[in-house]
This record gives sequence, C-alpha cells and structure tokens, in this order.
Amino acid sequence: MDEALRETTKKTAQMLFHSLKGGTGFETWKKFDKELARELSMFFTGKLYSREVISQKQRELCAVASLTVLNRRAEVRAHIHAALNVGAARQEVAEVIFQQVTYGGMPVVVEAIEVLKEVLEERGEWE
Amino acid sequence: MDEALRETTKKTAQMLFHSLKGGTGFETWKKFDKELARELSMFFTGKLYSREVISQKQRELCAVASLTVLNRRAEVRAHIHAALNVGAARQEVAEVIFQQVTYGGMPVVVEAIEVLKEVLEERGEWE
Amino acid sequence: MDEALRETTKKTAQMLFHSLKGGTGFETWKKFDKELARELSMFFTGKLYSREVISQKQRELCAVASLTVLNRRAEVRAHIHAALNVGAARQEVAEVIFQQVTYGGMPVVVEAIEVLKEVLEERGEWE
Amino acid sequence: MDEALRETTKKTAQMLFHSLKGGTGFETWKKFDKELARELSMFFTGKLYSREVISQKQRELCAVASLTVLNRRAEVRAHIHAALNVGAARQEVAEVIFQQVTYGGMPVVVEAIEVLKEVLEERGEWE
Amino acid sequence: MDEALRETTKKTAQMLFHSLKGGTGFETWKKFDKELARELSMFFTGKLYSREVISQKQRELCAVASLTVLNRRAEVRAHIHAALNVGAARQEVAEVIFQQVTYGGMPVVVEAIEVLKEVLEERGEWE
Amino acid sequence: MDEALRETTKKTAQMLFHSLKGGTGFETWKKFDKELARELSMFFTGKLYSREVISQKQRELCAVASLTVLNRRAEVRAHIHAALNVGAARQEVAEVIFQQVTYGGMPVVVEAIEVLKEVLEERGEWE
Repeated sequence: MDEALRETTKKTAQMLFHSLKGGTGFETWKKFDKELARELSMFFTGKLYSREVISQKQRELCAVASLTVLNRRAEVRAHIHAALNVGAARQEVAEVIFQQVTYGGMPVVVEAIEVLKEVLEERGEWE
Repeated sequence: MDEALRETTKKTAQMLFHSLKGGTGFETWKKFDKELARELSMFFTGKLYSREVISQKQRELCAVASLTVLNRRAEVRAHIHAALNVGAARQEVAEVIFQQVTYGGMPVVVEAIEVLKEVLEERGEWE
Repeated sequence: MDEALRETTKKTAQMLFHSLKGGTGFETWKKFDKELARELSMFFTGKLYSREVISQKQRELCAVASLTVLNRRAEVRAHIHAALNVGAARQEVAEVIFQQVTYGGMPVVVEAIEVLKEVLEERGEWE
Repeated sequence: MDEALRETTKKTAQMLFHSLKGGTGFETWKKFDKELARELSMFFTGKLYSREVISQKQRELCAVASLTVLNRRAEVRAHIHAALNVGAARQEVAEVIFQQVTYGGMPVVVEAIEVLKEVLEERGEWE
Repeated sequence: MDEALRETTKKTAQMLFHSLKGGTGFETWKKFDKELARELSMFFTGKLYSREVISQKQRELCAVASLTVLNRRAEVRAHIHAALNVGAARQEVAEVIFQQVTYGGMPVVVEAIEVLKEVLEERGEWE
Repeated sequence: MDEALRETTKKTAQMLFHSLKGGTGFETWKKFDKELARELSMFFTGKLYSREVISQKQRELCAVASLTVLNRRAEVRAHIHAALNVGAARQEVAEVIFQQVTYGGMPVVVEAIEVLKEVLEERGEWE
C-alpha cells in the first residue's frame, strides 16, 4: 500500500511540476530528515493533490488564487506552472490573479502577474 | 452606458449573494460616501465579477480559497453562499477549503469548515 | 527622569484613549508581569506616541490605515477613537479606511467601516 | 502499522488537548470527508506532534509563539491549553506571548494575553 | 466624461510616480487584458487617489504605513517616492515607518527603513 | 542605570548576533534618528531579550517559529544564527521549522528550510 502511495506521489508531482526548474525543495528537506521529508511529500502531493473531488485544473487555479493573496512568490511560480501543465489557459490564470485584487489588494496582484509573465517566458510562450 | 453597468452590478450581486442575510455592508458605506460606495460596488461586482473568462463557479471557488487562507470569516461566509448559488456542490467547496491546509495551515481550514457548516445550516442543507 | 516619562505616558494615553471603554489591556498585562507591562506602556505610549515629528492627527490616521489592512478589529476601534480625539473628522477617517482597498482588498475595508460606524454610535455621533 | 499510528494519534491528542472544551473541529471535518479528516488528524497529531526531536514543552511554546503572531485566537487557546498540559508554567507562556511584540506588534500580543487569562480562568488557575 | 477620467488618471499617476524607475507594472497588465488594465488604473489612480478629502501628503503617508506592515517591498518603494513627491519630508516618512513597530513588529520596520534609504540614494538625497 | 542597560543591550546583541554578517540595520536607523534607534535597540535587545523567564534557547526557537510563519526571510536568518549561537542543535531548529507547516502551511516552511541551509553553509556547518 505504501508502495502505491509512493507511486501516486511521484506521478502527481510529475504531472504538476515537471516543467519547474530548480525543484520544490524536497532534496533539501531530505538532508535534515529523510523520513519527515517523505511524509510531507506523500501527504500533500500523494494524498491531497491526487484527490479527484474537483478537477486538477480547478485545484491549481485555487492554488494560484491563495498563493497570490499570501504573496508567496516561489510557490506562485510553481503553481502557475502546474495550472498550465494541467490545461489552464494563460488567460484563465491571469483572470484568477486579477480577481484577487478584491481580497488581497493591488500589490499582490502586481507581483503575481509579473511571475506569470516570467513563467510564460521560461516556457517560450510569451509573445 | 452607466445605466447598463448599474444593471449588470445589480444582477451579478443578486445572482451571487441573494441568499446572504445581513447584506454586504453597502448600506453602511453609502452613509459615509454615496458616490464612492457606488464606485466600489460597480467596480468589484459590476466590472470584475461579471467577467466571463472563467466560469462563475470557478471564480467563486477561487474566492473561497483565498478568503480561507486570509482568514476573513465574514467574507468566507459570503462567498461560500455565492459558490453554492452558482452551482458548486458542498463537497467541492469543502475540498477547496481542505486543500488550503497546504498554503495556509490548519487553523484557517478549521475556521472555514466551521463557516461552511454554518452556511449549510442556514440554508437548511446540513445533514 | 523616569518620573517625567511616566507623566508623559499617562498624559498621552489620556489624550488618545480617554473615550475608549474597556481599556487597553494594561490591567491584564500587569497581572502577569508588572515591570514588563510598564515597560511596554512607557515605550509605545510614552516614548513613541508622544513624539512630535508628525502631528497626532497624522499619526493616528496612519495607525488606522495599518490596523485596517492587518484586520485587527479591537485595535482599529482604539485608534479610530484616538484619531477622532485628536481632531480627525469622521470623513477623514472613513477616507483612510476606503483607501486601504488598494493595499489590503475589500474584506478589511468592510470590517473597518463597520467598526467606524460602531465607534460613532458609541460616541453618540452617528447620523 | 496503521493501527499503531491511530493509537499514537489518540494518545498525543489526549495528552495535549484533554482539557480543551468544545474539541478541535475533528467531528465537523468527518461530516464532510471521513477519510480525509482521519488523514489530517493522523498526519498532524500522530506523525508530527508525536516526534521527539524537541520536547513537548518546547514544541507547544513554539506553537503559542507562531499562533500569537498569526492572530489565530481559537488555536492560540488550544495550544495554550496544550502548553500548560505538558508542563509549561503560566509565566513561561506569558513570556513567549510578550516576546512576540518584536515580530508581530502589540495588537496580537494584547489578544493572546487576553486568551491566556481566559484559559487560566477556565482551568480555575487565575488569580 | 471617460476622457476626463483618463486625463485625471494620467495627471495623478504623473504627480505621484514620475520619479519611479521601472514603472508600476501597467505595461505588463495590458499584455494580458488591455481593457481590465485600464479599468484598474482608472479606478485606483483616477478615482481613488485623486480624491481630496484628505491631502495627498496624508494619503501617501497612510500608504507607507500600511504597505510597511504588509511588508510589500516594491510598493513601499513606489509610495515612498510618491510621499516625497507630494511634499512629505524624509523625516516624516521615517517617522511613519518607525511608528509601525507598534502594529507590525520590528522586521517590517527594518525592511521599510532600508527601502527608504535606497529611495533617497536613488534620488541623490542620501547623505 | 542607563549605562547598565546599554551594557546589557550590547552583551545580549553580541551573544545572539555576533556571527551575523551585514548587521541588523541599526546603523541605518541611526542615520534617521539616533535617539529613537537607541531606544528601539535598548527596548528589544536590552530589556526584552535579556530576560530570563525562559532560556535563551527556548526564546530563540520561538523566534524562529514565528518568523517562519510570518515569512520574514532576513529575520529568520538572524534568529537561526541566534538559535545556533545559544546552543540549539541544527536538528532542533529544523524541527521547529517543519512543525510550522501546521500553522502556516508548506510555502513558509520551504523558504525557512532554505534559509537554514544557507546559514549552515555560511557557518561552514553544512554537510
């Protein structure tokens, strides 16, 4: 069973973050505590992100929404990649970011839109 | 044109918040500045929320996500109503709230789930 | 010298918060640590708030601004009292709160405007 | 093995929160998703809180510190109970809260000290 | 009328931000949605910032206050420029930043004071 | 007496931050207001951090906890140094950071663990 969970974790991480350069920090966590690093990864990626109550696209747009208002730049980048990787259009990602002005104000929108532009450039999809 | 915008604002507010008791605060804002109250309402509800780049359901799930991590109880309540009013299932709303543990930790999830329960009770949809 | 600082602390607290029912919490802090409670009070009220580089009105409007975006309801209440006590007009306090939509989004504005209304009611200055 | 984890989760929850009236919200989570509720509980309480790299007292004082600066009132209450339950003195809990003025400012300290007083009253340890 | 609003937006932006290198992000927003970019700019700059209930100097000092406690570095920079551009003295800006230790703690003050120093250097006003 | 406080401030700062390159910002504060800079330093370092109700190690672990959830990178760095300087083991610091996932979510943990790695590298204690 643990084997199945590991497999799901790996596949889900691959699906969401395969295009993300520099990784998610997992390699560093392992240096401090191999066991805990794995538990964290299996819990969040393997158990939570693999659930199918909402679609992967819905989930990733919600991640972009909350990471935008929290102003977590590195993680906004990761989940913009993920959103695009599971089929969200750039215009949909931009829309969710702009909407956040309502809940978090302009400064966090300005920064997340900048990150979106950088991600599109990285992917060769900026015009 | 302004007339059209007022109409859109009213219809959008009605669609999203008709089930919300106690209103959105608009009546109080008007007591301080009628003109500004209207501008705020027309901008956020009339212009932003009426856009159709993403579906109303997707937009409201994103609102629930970011209001959960920001721990804004009154507004979480308003947008849980809105999400249910535009067709989100209670299970989808709960899923988005639970997902937020990843970005905002357990305390904000605990509070938003409590609010979801209260909203369902208000609507006679609990149990 | 300490005596002078105590005097300044008392006079500044009186000027800002005399109309605030329920106090500032100082009595409770003293129950845990009399000495530290006094140090906190003398530092923030006696040393910081008594400075005259900016006017008391400007200082209190800045307090309302930042407490609004931080969504600290009890302290927003205290500093709305203080702002009104040192000569800010209700319209000026409302303006500073509305402005914060730019930096902190609508939910924090909605709550602070509600508090402003409550404070005006308490003071018999509503309507 | 899962059985062992359940046992650890239960014992750890009991040790930390036995004195907390009203529970932790777990009963509500289960109404939405029994499986996920259990996963959350086993991960945070069973796996994370049961670790022994730092003492339970250190862990709970750190919880009080971060919940104070985040201004999460209900959870500050829960972890003040927990801190006292694993042997922290009231004076140590108060000290950690007062220290947080450095990182989070006075308003969050004022509120957490109030909660500490309420918890001590609940436990019949005030005066 | 729209023409008048555009004119006001442009003049207000010029008055506040003319000295800010690198712009406000507006050019990037336009790449995603020209219409929405304009609406955002006309609402926040044209309608909100051009109001005269409080003076421009008061408004900008309040912006510095709330952006300091929110720890929004890029926007603190923009509004320090704006505050200086509408007549605030460097000593007044510094005072407002130092005051924020009360509401947001030392770390956000430390960072905003650093930004103030950088802005003064950029403007050739650091001694 | 003031002389004694200055001495305590200096010794406490030295004990906690002697290994921190680039300083704490104090030199910049002094450029704006010598008197206030000193008051801030004597209050936080001299009066608060020198208290002995909890151990220095306990205090610094609590600082790491709350600065992690607040996502204050520069100050997390300073207090990771301080924690290590007063005898916390790297494994204890890492544990406190990992624990914060419960209250602040994964993104803040990811960033603080990165900072911990950088600090250990700076000190020649990585690997």
